[in-house]
Amino acid sequence: MGERTFTCGLDAAIAVMGGKWKGLILFALQDGPLRFGELRRAVGTISERMLILQLREMQTAGLLHREVYQQVPPKVEYSLTEFGRSLNDAMAPLGAWGEDHLERIEAIPFE
Amino acid sequence: MGERTFTCGLDAAIAVMGGKWKGLILFALQDGPLRFGELRRAVGTISERMLILQLREMQTAGLLHREVYQQVPPKVEYSLTEFGRSLNDAMAPLGAWGEDHLERIEAIPFE
Repeated sequence: MGERTFTCGLDAAIAVMGGKWKGLILFALQDGPLRFGELRRAVGTISERMLILQLREMQTAGLLHREVYQQVPPKVEYSLTEFGRSLNDAMAPLGAWGEDHLERIEAIPFE
Repeated sequence: MGERTFTCGLDAAIAVMGGKWKGLILFALQDGPLRFGELRRAVGTISERMLILQLREMQTAGLLHREVYQQVPPKVEYSLTEFGRSLNDAMAPLGAWGEDHLERIEAIPFE
């Protein structure tokens, strides 16, 4: 575990995103807070274990806020911080590009 | 090796980018064609082996064009296709976000 230096902004942004899940989680939360189960359904194929890991990393990075409501049964909600919202906004054009070229991308022979 | 289906455009776009290198290579080529050695210096810390691999994958994905000039010694140049240029444009806001938050990102305790 340690701090990193980056060669450019894109490098840094991709390190924060760290794979496909974080982007999808940010996207799922853009319209408001969600509970763990709601988030898992919204993200789709992610496993419970992987979602827990990603949420923890995103809290550490300051992208997410985790709110615990002391009630019976206790309720936990995840929401975007301002930092998380700014990353989500910055990713939006990339998401739109993927939408626009989905057929072409799906035809690429990924290794 | 095979085709994939994606849950959304962002998922698809991230699959095409596939890690940090492709974004940096697109960025390096945005002002015009480069030869292998020029590209390697522009990208920075990438190994020769990794750059060869990334360039091959990006050609397969239709992001890059590889032009061989029959001269002595032979000259090979890499350039963005229209598809590659559109991805580079879509990534620009993410790169700018990384620039804007570089200090904060570098302070994140990545695992």
